[in-house]
Amino acid sequence: MKKKMGRKNIYINNTPLDMAVKNWHRALSEENCFNPLPRERVSVEDSMGRITAEPLFARTSSPFYNGAAMDGIAVRFRDLTGANEANPITLTYPDQYIPINTGNLLPDEFDAVVMIEDVQHLEENKVEIITPVTPWTNVRTIGEDIVATELIVPQGHIIRPIDQGAMLATGLTSINVRPIPKILVIPTGTDLVQPGKPLKPGDIIEFNSRVLSGYLRQWGANTVKNPIVPDDPGALEETIKNNLHLYDILLINAGASAGTKDYTHSVLKKLGKIIVHGVNIKPGKPVILSIVQGKPVIGLPGYPVSAVLTMRLFVKKLIDLYLGIETVEEKTIPAILSRPLSSEMGVENFTRVKLGRVENNLMATPTGGGAGAVMSLVQADGIIVIPSGNEGIGAGEVVEVELLRDIKEIENTIVFIGSHDNLLDVLANLLHKIPPVHRLSSAHVGSMGGIMAIKRKEAHFAGSHLMDEKTGEYNIPFIQRFLKGIPLLLLNLSYREQGIIIPRGNPANIKEFKDIARPGIKFINRQKGSGTRLLTDMLIKKFKITPTKINGYELEEYTHMNVASAVASNRGDAGMGIRYAAKALDLEFIPITEERYDLIIPKKYFDNEKTAKVLSIIRENKEFRNTVRAMGGYSLRDSGTIIYEQ
Amino acid sequence: MKKKMGRKNIYINNTPLDMAVKNWHRALSEENCFNPLPRERVSVEDSMGRITAEPLFARTSSPFYNGAAMDGIAVRFRDLTGANEANPITLTYPDQYIPINTGNLLPDEFDAVVMIEDVQHLEENKVEIITPVTPWTNVRTIGEDIVATELIVPQGHIIRPIDQGAMLATGLTSINVRPIPKILVIPTGTDLVQPGKPLKPGDIIEFNSRVLSGYLRQWGANTVKNPIVPDDPGALEETIKNNLHLYDILLINAGASAGTKDYTHSVLKKLGKIIVHGVNIKPGKPVILSIVQGKPVIGLPGYPVSAVLTMRLFVKKLIDLYLGIETVEEKTIPAILSRPLSSEMGVENFTRVKLGRVENNLMATPTGGGAGAVMSLVQADGIIVIPSGNEGIGAGEVVEVELLRDIKEIENTIVFIGSHDNLLDVLANLLHKIPPVHRLSSAHVGSMGGIMAIKRKEAHFAGSHLMDEKTGEYNIPFIQRFLKGIPLLLLNLSYREQGIIIPRGNPANIKEFKDIARPGIKFINRQKGSGTRLLTDMLIKKFKITPTKINGYELEEYTHMNVASAVASNRGDAGMGIRYAAKALDLEFIPITEERYDLIIPKKYFDNEKTAKVLSIIRENKEFRNTVRAMGGYSLRDSGTIIYEQ
Repeated sequence: MKKKMGRKNIYINNTPLDMAVKNWHRALSEENCFNPLPRERVSVEDSMGRITAEPLFARTSSPFYNGAAMDGIAVRFRDLTGANEANPITLTYPDQYIPINTGNLLPDEFDAVVMIEDVQHLEENKVEIITPVTPWTNVRTIGEDIVATELIVPQGHIIRPIDQGAMLATGLTSINVRPIPKILVIPTGTDLVQPGKPLKPGDIIEFNSRVLSGYLRQWGANTVKNPIVPDDPGALEETIKNNLHLYDILLINAGASAGTKDYTHSVLKKLGKIIVHGVNIKPGKPVILSIVQGKPVIGLPGYPVSAVLTMRLFVKKLIDLYLGIETVEEKTIPAILSRPLSSEMGVENFTRVKLGRVENNLMATPTGGGAGAVMSLVQADGIIVIPSGNEGIGAGEVVEVELLRDIKEIENTIVFIGSHDNLLDVLANLLHKIPPVHRLSSAHVGSMGGIMAIKRKEAHFAGSHLMDEKTGEYNIPFIQRFLKGIPLLLLNLSYREQGIIIPRGNPANIKEFKDIARPGIKFINRQKGSGTRLLTDMLIKKFKITPTKINGYELEEYTHMNVASAVASNRGDAGMGIRYAAKALDLEFIPITEERYDLIIPKKYFDNEKTAKVLSIIRENKEFRNTVRAMGGYSLRDSGTIIYEQ
Repeated sequence: MKKKMGRKNIYINNTPLDMAVKNWHRALSEENCFNPLPRERVSVEDSMGRITAEPLFARTSSPFYNGAAMDGIAVRFRDLTGANEANPITLTYPDQYIPINTGNLLPDEFDAVVMIEDVQHLEENKVEIITPVTPWTNVRTIGEDIVATELIVPQGHIIRPIDQGAMLATGLTSINVRPIPKILVIPTGTDLVQPGKPLKPGDIIEFNSRVLSGYLRQWGANTVKNPIVPDDPGALEETIKNNLHLYDILLINAGASAGTKDYTHSVLKKLGKIIVHGVNIKPGKPVILSIVQGKPVIGLPGYPVSAVLTMRLFVKKLIDLYLGIETVEEKTIPAILSRPLSSEMGVENFTRVKLGRVENNLMATPTGGGAGAVMSLVQADGIIVIPSGNEGIGAGEVVEVELLRDIKEIENTIVFIGSHDNLLDVLANLLHKIPPVHRLSSAHVGSMGGIMAIKRKEAHFAGSHLMDEKTGEYNIPFIQRFLKGIPLLLLNLSYREQGIIIPRGNPANIKEFKDIARPGIKFINRQKGSGTRLLTDMLIKKFKITPTKINGYELEEYTHMNVASAVASNRGDAGMGIRYAAKALDLEFIPITEERYDLIIPKKYFDNEKTAKVLSIIRENKEFRNTVRAMGGYSLRDSGTIIYEQ
């Protein structure tokens, strides 16, 4: 372990995950956590989804009397012996029959029911029957469904509506079930601010406790969110002491690390027993597993992705343990990794991936994004675990993916890879909104990245706006060069204005492209391979600017919105991008050119339902056209037109 | 259509299911039900599981300031140019560095963070660094996760906790979602009695509305149960009129049929428009689909199984329609039908089946039980649909099964077929209670039925108590005859007392076996192939009784508990069965013999985990032994002993 900056004396261990789980569960058992399992009496009516704490046996039989199973007449079977079409038998009311409805008690003097369809009404109080019956025909006899004392459901069973029906039908009205575990989620951090409150830089919106509570509720717990506890060991200690007797499990988020304001470890060490501090997983390392007065108290890392992943690993099982049920293993599915994935040796790596079925293969593409990237988890379809002894996985290798969505939703996903454009968000919404539901999974890696994804068979379609310097032609020369021999169509999505994005009021007084190279101007560049970067480099050449003279030429952003965002936050004075990005963040825009943004669609996907839906939206959908018009900076004059075919 | 008994003038149609669904949905569309879809504003905090009624875009960027991504020190990257082990660079506080924690604002004068592990603390206000950094290293820049205006989730999306996190992180605190549909469930029937109330014959416990409400809630609706409405058209009309404006959908259960007390059709015809009355499905035929003042009002059949199945077919989709989401298709799985299944021609038959994996095949066995049999649905693992043009399906044919349980639960099922014994309930509970969870699926078809199930490879084990008349030997002669060549083990489960079950006080004065043939005595017999029937027939022979002289010899019941139940309900004066059955229903018992009840286990299942668990329970589990002792009438002296092997 490396030497650290003084002040604190906490060392986080690097316990391997399997050992951490083992030690944790041994400790829970030794400290008699949740032992014996508690029980609670509830009415059967309120028992849906609860776990039985005892086997449930029928108290009475069902039915509890002999009743008619059909609407018709109650008869004695002996009276109908020999009945047939040639020999109809006449019965007289009320000695030989009485009308009876489904569910009615069969009087003792009768032993069968003739259904109404087989009864011929002759005159008042007389009916004719032409078919004989056997004893108890159309009669629901006592205990036919359940006999008293029979097992309805065993202990540890999750109660379904039909189980409630069987209980009520056999005289059970209240039963013993497992109580719902109560979990207190304690957000800690002086910088935390409740959502909706005014923000100043350095503030952190306290949304983690909401996300964590949501998952805990999905897993079967009741949760309470504690008010925010500042970075003060005394306050944290008070909070734990005051709540320990009210809850079954306490979660502290965060302060589990070893920073100058991380007090969770010292407080828990003082109050109870720390079982694990630090697990060799990424994200999620600084997790604390402790037991205080027989109750599990867990310190989760502060980053939302780390917090969610460690909670899945360590808290989900606790809930099941409390409820006395087995943890349902997450569903996994094999997929092919679309690009290489490196992993730190000695660390178990949990990587979020997007999935999409391309050419019968389920392709997994890492989402990227750090432990703070909530959107990466919103967009993720699954998780790959790279074992600690592994340096990475190569492209094309089969990986086992733990699913975060239903596989059907993944099968309905349209995979887009390529240059970023806000029209894709509009398209994504309409694809999802118009039935049948389709999801657009889009990865923004620039125009060249999109072309390469088509070549690698990773995407259903790609978006590109690459201008060939010599001919001035968009996209086609690049397709002919890089996608030679692949049958495909090139369709226009839109024309859009490209230009310089600058802060409102233009403080740096930028008037034309060459101003970006002025001393003192901080430029925000786009990544290599993007159409905007190509445009930028062409303009640099045209104006004979030396790139190294541009302050910020090396700083690359991946989307128009990120360039605009960098300008909006004063990380730069100017950046190249589309008009809409400037407009969306209330910035100014100096137009330079109109460029063509096209979609590349391999022919093998062209006839399917998904592509047809994409085309129908961009060609004719009114909401699409109206939304894009309102956005500004776009022209849809050729949208959906086939521009090139090979 | 056959002629019916007068009094009412309602004709139920036999609309094919697909046409019923088509007509229903066309009518819903024509009458503008749920059009336009309503929306409701909710706080993001309360939005879990709700459906977005609009696309949600980030209001602000996240992060909204440049912040430290690590605990460490904020630096300027230029100050560290050229740093290496041989050339450490010293930085001075506060001009060249300041300590910074994860999430803190990075002051404008700095542009990178060095993590704490790489900082060597020299003396007060001086640190040494040996590695250079690039700009924005360990900094979370503005919009790195989400840039303002980016799409978070589209319209029609079911909100997950992580989505809530992304919304709160980007400044959204309230959003538009679809309201939760409100459904009123109206139980009708003068004979209905609320659960827990004292019962008299003819009363029907009103549990249907609870079962229906439970499923409706699982499918995403809010439900209210109306008080019971008597069989009175005026009362039903009032109830509908008074509630129509308060709910989105009304369900009436039952009165949908054509009996003398079925008023649902006439009331709905008066108030609105009936689209469908009668669908050619079984169970479930008398369903009514109507629209009253633009709201769907559905009459469901009275039998619980019919009501649940028709609700799945017609109401589940209504909820999804109201929420603007696609209906998730039920999961189906292929299985092999273990026995032939007949079906009425011209009727679409929905058959409940149990499933079990036996020898790598997933075997489907019909549960039996009528539309009133709640337990058949409690025990069912899936549903097979037999199309209306089909007379049935043969044994061994592959059928598509719609799953009612998770496939993992089915894979963990131990399939028992054979003679009924209450110890199987005790075993079932312990198999489920002791981890890892196993479910015992038991079909009670008598000892010979169990032997045949082993032969047909339908079961993991069978239970038998067949005595060979000549040798007096139990089970072995039958195995040698019917299961020749199949390697198996025969293990004892228990010895149990067989005898005559009679009502308390012995009103018919029965003293010994031959008394059952006395004139005026009504006997309850067991089905052919059961061990108890064999014993009965042997005793009949021994006492030289003519079977036709026994009143009730032809009436067969399938379990000990059903025999006891028949005696308890005065359907008979005496029946053969085990002591526990008599004791459980508080009846008297005249012991005749002690018999041996054994388990037949094919060797191929003997080594697996499931069998090992069964053996360990019957051989050593204390709870098993104590429970059985308390039941009475059993001896476990040889329980678990291998009696025979082949």
